[in-house]
Amino acid sequence: MAENVLVVHGGGPTAVINSSLYGVIEEARESGRIDKVYGAIGGSEGILRERFMDLLKFPEEKLKLLLETPATSIGSSRYALEQKDYEAMVDIFKKHEIQYVLLNGGNGTMDTCGRIYEACKGEGIRVVGIPKTIDNDIAITDHTPGYGSAARYIAGTTAEVGVDVKSLPIHVCILEAMGRNAGWITAASALARKQPGDAPHLIYLPERPFHEDEFLEDVKRLYEEKGGVVVVVSEGLKNELGEPVVPPIFKTERATYYGDVGAFLAELVIRKLGIKARSEKPGICGRASIPWQSPVDRDEAILAGREALKAAMEGKSGVMVGFIRDVEKEEAGGVYQMRVETIPIKEVMMYERTIPASYINQRGNDVTDEFIRWCRPLIGPELRDFIDFKEEYEKR
Amino acid sequence: MAENVLVVHGGGPTAVINSSLYGVIEEARESGRIDKVYGAIGGSEGILRERFMDLLKFPEEKLKLLLETPATSIGSSRYALEQKDYEAMVDIFKKHEIQYVLLNGGNGTMDTCGRIYEACKGEGIRVVGIPKTIDNDIAITDHTPGYGSAARYIAGTTAEVGVDVKSLPIHVCILEAMGRNAGWITAASALARKQPGDAPHLIYLPERPFHEDEFLEDVKRLYEEKGGVVVVVSEGLKNELGEPVVPPIFKTERATYYGDVGAFLAELVIRKLGIKARSEKPGICGRASIPWQSPVDRDEAILAGREALKAAMEGKSGVMVGFIRDVEKEEAGGVYQMRVETIPIKEVMMYERTIPASYINQRGNDVTDEFIRWCRPLIGPELRDFIDFKEEYEKR
Repeated sequence: MAENVLVVHGGGPTAVINSSLYGVIEEARESGRIDKVYGAIGGSEGILRERFMDLLKFPEEKLKLLLETPATSIGSSRYALEQKDYEAMVDIFKKHEIQYVLLNGGNGTMDTCGRIYEACKGEGIRVVGIPKTIDNDIAITDHTPGYGSAARYIAGTTAEVGVDVKSLPIHVCILEAMGRNAGWITAASALARKQPGDAPHLIYLPERPFHEDEFLEDVKRLYEEKGGVVVVVSEGLKNELGEPVVPPIFKTERATYYGDVGAFLAELVIRKLGIKARSEKPGICGRASIPWQSPVDRDEAILAGREALKAAMEGKSGVMVGFIRDVEKEEAGGVYQMRVETIPIKEVMMYERTIPASYINQRGNDVTDEFIRWCRPLIGPELRDFIDFKEEYEKR
Repeated sequence: MAENVLVVHGGGPTAVINSSLYGVIEEARESGRIDKVYGAIGGSEGILRERFMDLLKFPEEKLKLLLETPATSIGSSRYALEQKDYEAMVDIFKKHEIQYVLLNGGNGTMDTCGRIYEACKGEGIRVVGIPKTIDNDIAITDHTPGYGSAARYIAGTTAEVGVDVKSLPIHVCILEAMGRNAGWITAASALARKQPGDAPHLIYLPERPFHEDEFLEDVKRLYEEKGGVVVVVSEGLKNELGEPVVPPIFKTERATYYGDVGAFLAELVIRKLGIKARSEKPGICGRASIPWQSPVDRDEAILAGREALKAAMEGKSGVMVGFIRDVEKEEAGGVYQMRVETIPIKEVMMYERTIPASYINQRGNDVTDEFIRWCRPLIGPELRDFIDFKEEYEKR
């Protein structure tokens, strides 16, 4: 019987999902065991519709493009699976001689992964999860592929915006970062700093209730000191009641819509402090950015794909590939210490991991050095150096 | 007597202003004539405060950082000059033995350049303008340094966002581009396309009155066809009366504030069409982006700096360095045809150049091939290729 693999993508894009797919294909090729690596075209819905395409047949030259193609090359879906769908999948897998099912996604996808695993138990089909999310909110694993690149994007972009704002320091610039419930991306903006006083000057995370008065106080003080202030905020900032800080702008039958936090806070600065302000919201420009892809993140994404297939071929099922760090050893030796392990999928299913208290400063307007040490290796090489003759002039 | 140069930066940042400064320094060094290349620290205000720093004394290694430092390394200002300031400047130039004054900026700065030139007439001080603006709205010159990089940023980013939206095609994504009165940057998003059907699917420019009903009609049609739609809009869209399409959100004594056009249009799509929509506004992240710097733009920025100093040393004054293109010759020979000329500053002062009608399609929701041919050489090398297995699957 043929040994076939099926790769399924779930949820929102990152800059390195396709790198994990590349890792699976390379591992399959090198194993000498695998006949076909099917991509499910259009996510879990693609499984039910049996939209499978063998990716092993593509030349290496074409497959290499996966490493620099953002989002998912095989497509994803938001289709809500029902119990009967899971049962139907087992027959579909058998029909196509698929022994290894690899699901690549975030928390929602890991939940699906667990359910498919349950449905496939005793059928000789192994189901393994490959973590992926810019939000970095999957449990147990130290971090997730996709995060390092989103972190590098926000750090590099904040550094560039910082130079822009400093060159004509007459306003407050609010940069809105993705991550509705978890502030991992927003926090990574701190990696922009090379010297004391560098942007970002303030960081607000959804893990801490947002106090408008403290925010205005902080902004005013920094504006008086610097003239140009860069603030990075999470799109999901909430007040003490856990409600979004932006009042709802309108409702439809299905959902309530809120304005952009960045725009809201910029308006607040203008209105309440009389200081010029503007906001930027790169949004999905960030998660899709290939120039800011972190090489470390990309390598780890490839590795996660490879290790998922390896685990499945070794007979593991109902597990997710995870990254385990030894930060203490890193601090002693100065070298990034990461190893891959498989984690029972039940332990990660539908648990949203947010930033621990030790990574946030007391006032809740910045991150701690502990966070920076944790995050630093993930974004890859040092950001470029800039030259500031204004500063050289002041130093004379 | 010493021969000294003064470089002054005006107005808003681009990704290559510092490259023009680098060009001036290199030209000065190579000429063997120049004693000092002063940077005015903090723009025209820096002249009056005599905040001058000799940049020739810095090592080449440090100066090279100028090529990859966004915004201005010597600072800019928004100080409003008065007639007495121009007169004071002449004495300051003489005191510091400055024979060559080079002003780098957009339309406002070229106006200042003309006035300084008038004040310096007959004093043996030559005044030359170096164009610079992401907005590309300076008259006569074919394009301005700074534009090519802003164009490359929006083209590359639109291509990446296009892939993101296509991978899970369930919404309309509105990307807001800079350029309040001139749509040059917005238009350049069209360079993202490699194949028919690629993003951007719609482009709206401030040069054409925006019709809400036509916009909704276009979006609806494309959404039904594709599922995922990418629209690029200028931040300065206006209706038939010339008023911003976004209603004012509040007023202060000094100014009226409008919301973001992208957010406004996304809301319109949700409300009126019931289609999921979101907006992104990279804003100054775009003009400060070094990874998206166009190598052509950077080289031309260096050249503009060099040529400005050359012109001044040759005795020219009251001129701006401009780029002259021969697009007909380009089309015949397939090679970019650009030469540098000096343009009398009086001809460019305070005239805002917008997109000509021949660059906009009839319905006003896209650019023409003529625009694409004009813009293509400015953004530099081909954008990277992506791989789309969904498309390969459909093609089988």
